[in-house]
Amino acid sequence: MSGALLDALRGCVGAAQVLVGGDLSAFELDWRKRWRGRALAVVRPGSAAEVAAVVRACAAGGAPIVAQGGNTGLVGAGVPDGSGTQVLLSLTRLNRIREIDAANLTLTAEAGCVLQAVQQAAAEAGLLFPLSLAAEGSCTIGGTLATNAGGTQVLRYGNARALCLGLEAVTASGEIWHGLAGLRKDNTGYDLRDLLIGSEGTLAIITAATLMLHPQPAATMTALAACDSLDACVALLAAAQRRLGPGLTGFEVMNAYSLALVARHFPQLRQPLAATPWTVLVELSDNEGPDHARAQFEALLADALEAGSIGDAAVAESVAQSRAMWHLRESIPLAQSEEGLNIKHDIALPVSRVAAFCAATDAALAAQWPGLRLVNFGHLGDGNLHYNVQAPAGRDAAGFLRDEEHAVNAVVFDAVVAQGGSISAEHGIGVLKREELARRKDPTALAMMRAVKAALDPNGLLNPGRVL
Amino acid sequence: MSGALLDALRGCVGAAQVLVGGDLSAFELDWRKRWRGRALAVVRPGSAAEVAAVVRACAAGGAPIVAQGGNTGLVGAGVPDGSGTQVLLSLTRLNRIREIDAANLTLTAEAGCVLQAVQQAAAEAGLLFPLSLAAEGSCTIGGTLATNAGGTQVLRYGNARALCLGLEAVTASGEIWHGLAGLRKDNTGYDLRDLLIGSEGTLAIITAATLMLHPQPAATMTALAACDSLDACVALLAAAQRRLGPGLTGFEVMNAYSLALVARHFPQLRQPLAATPWTVLVELSDNEGPDHARAQFEALLADALEAGSIGDAAVAESVAQSRAMWHLRESIPLAQSEEGLNIKHDIALPVSRVAAFCAATDAALAAQWPGLRLVNFGHLGDGNLHYNVQAPAGRDAAGFLRDEEHAVNAVVFDAVVAQGGSISAEHGIGVLKREELARRKDPTALAMMRAVKAALDPNGLLNPGRVL
Repeated sequence: MSGALLDALRGCVGAAQVLVGGDLSAFELDWRKRWRGRALAVVRPGSAAEVAAVVRACAAGGAPIVAQGGNTGLVGAGVPDGSGTQVLLSLTRLNRIREIDAANLTLTAEAGCVLQAVQQAAAEAGLLFPLSLAAEGSCTIGGTLATNAGGTQVLRYGNARALCLGLEAVTASGEIWHGLAGLRKDNTGYDLRDLLIGSEGTLAIITAATLMLHPQPAATMTALAACDSLDACVALLAAAQRRLGPGLTGFEVMNAYSLALVARHFPQLRQPLAATPWTVLVELSDNEGPDHARAQFEALLADALEAGSIGDAAVAESVAQSRAMWHLRESIPLAQSEEGLNIKHDIALPVSRVAAFCAATDAALAAQWPGLRLVNFGHLGDGNLHYNVQAPAGRDAAGFLRDEEHAVNAVVFDAVVAQGGSISAEHGIGVLKREELARRKDPTALAMMRAVKAALDPNGLLNPGRVL
Repeated sequence: MSGALLDALRGCVGAAQVLVGGDLSAFELDWRKRWRGRALAVVRPGSAAEVAAVVRACAAGGAPIVAQGGNTGLVGAGVPDGSGTQVLLSLTRLNRIREIDAANLTLTAEAGCVLQAVQQAAAEAGLLFPLSLAAEGSCTIGGTLATNAGGTQVLRYGNARALCLGLEAVTASGEIWHGLAGLRKDNTGYDLRDLLIGSEGTLAIITAATLMLHPQPAATMTALAACDSLDACVALLAAAQRRLGPGLTGFEVMNAYSLALVARHFPQLRQPLAATPWTVLVELSDNEGPDHARAQFEALLADALEAGSIGDAAVAESVAQSRAMWHLRESIPLAQSEEGLNIKHDIALPVSRVAAFCAATDAALAAQWPGLRLVNFGHLGDGNLHYNVQAPAGRDAAGFLRDEEHAVNAVVFDAVVAQGGSISAEHGIGVLKREELARRKDPTALAMMRAVKAALDPNGLLNPGRVL
């Protein structure tokens, strides 16, 4: 059977693009090195028509399909399981930017385009594609849409969903949906675009997208500010939203322990502020120019100093200083890895409840696991925290993860749900949170999701065992 | 059978809220007076639980359900058909604003809240709910979400979809989905929210929504500018986007004939500019204040005058003058009605193709119907035109509509589709465009929509005969 399927796949894409045997780790092992699967074959189509042909061949052979972009996902949705029966469909050869329409502020890219390449193409046209996240040098547009990726500018520009106007996708029966469109308004039937975005390859396979561009800002300014508490951070956020309006494009928070870890593992990185319970990174994107940006920014910080919501601040005086501030923020996950294994959370809360959530949950965790350390940082402007839990000092990190992850998750997720939050803000469900989703999602929503899945993929061949 | 159903409905909501007989025109006749149906009963539940009970009773009795908000829809989706078998479910008693969370910039409103009441509640909290459209004094939040309404500020804030963070809805089987959430990020499964938004009551019944608020602008400025051509309007739009960035909150165009109709039927309205092929209404919302707004605005207009993209401009010097400019724009549909029947279109195009579309389509229509008049106006910033066609002078308007609508639509919609546009930008499909949708939508998309409909409403009781 699998011999016939392999022959059919070779007929679809050419023998050179059907990989069987050899070291396929690049496709079979996820970025976090947490899930290692085994594919029946890695198939690399070069066009939407070839994707459709591959899907039809797999459907005829009853073979499940796992779609993969840059393989940078964090929840195990993009690698095959261990059965050796799943076809790994790599989209990376679909990497053409098909069109830039500057007057319409749109760009049409194939699914396998690397995010950074799309950012650069927009910049070369004098425009901005604002989606930005740590993996941008290797993640693909298809993957960012399949997972509805977030990142650092969601506060102003929305997540991947908000930046997509149209899709081309291949259905479970191998039909191509020609839904590329550069339209700001289109009320012709159900919103299939947003249904596929964030569905992690379980409803259809995205092959191309029309993306929304924005004018480039005339100036960008970055600052770090010291806050005594999360309440003070939230107060600064409100003041920044009032004063900067849509110019506020970044608002990140980092707790003291996060930056202490960075100091320990990357001592060469300069930390402009003295240690403080919370450090905020604020970014303004200004459409007038550097002088206006600076005046706006300094007024905001002066008011905040006077109001007592911040204790100190450092404004970047150059692009290099701005990059260094972002580099501090982006070094936290790496510093964490250097420190050892830990229990990661990607939660969202109403901004109004973040401080209360942290106060209660920090205390609940400390009571159960004295000495436990919290690497708490994230996108406060979106209510999105990476609320990561590290073993108490002296305790074996791997053992703590193995023995306590379930109990720690129960404390954190119970508190998240009680506060009206989300157990997966921007990373998705995949394999990692599938059971939590089944346990915690509204049962009516789950039933609707299952009905939609059965309707669009009746044989269950698209990324089975993920999400639902 | 219908007696038993009526008894069951009375048991759900009380006898006083089940209307049978008498003048039910307010529910059975649509706003455009184009569709008059007959309901089995008008049922007015007072809570989501009562909506669920009504849906279960209708499902048990096999009675179709038409959900209705303010009955201001333009495509016949919110009134019953003429069979006398459909239950008209009016949501207007669900009119509580449940919560305003100012720190989270969210407001939770029940489906029957009038849009203007939501705008006012936001304003009383010092915040802005930016969805704004002509029917705002009577349309409801549930209706604006069911139709994914657009309006005048989509350019900056998006349409209804972009302003909704969470939903509460009743499914076809009478279950309540508790999906209200004030979260900017939530990647826990399929995007049911956006699937229901814009589905015109055919997939579920929205009972409440959590809406996104924005800071109020510190100043707003409005101007009219005269352009020689649509190309010049598009050039002005690009310049305004570059200079004003997200401060650009309105960009409307009106052709000469539109304003001539306003002058004929509403001579008391002052028109600040001399007659010109195209008049643009530009609006800036500034987060700093009136001085900054004026400087920005004057610089934009001075540059445009120098570049030759505009010939003249008038800046509103007061709130009253600004309102008068908007009033001119909003009087076009009324002036059209005064002039007589016409063939309305609500189309969207990539902004880059609007001018070419109009040049070609204007000419094609003029060739086939010499003397035909175009009332062409709309939201150019979104590529959305109300490209309305009026009979040649001297020809009977009603007869023209009756005899030529189909042929005119064929010319217009063929051109729209050829340019990658949408035949329904913001009004939806309903009854009016159901056949056009079946004919013109991508067949794979139609098949996916039908599968989703069958999955979520297997007995076809939610607003049958609309959309699909």
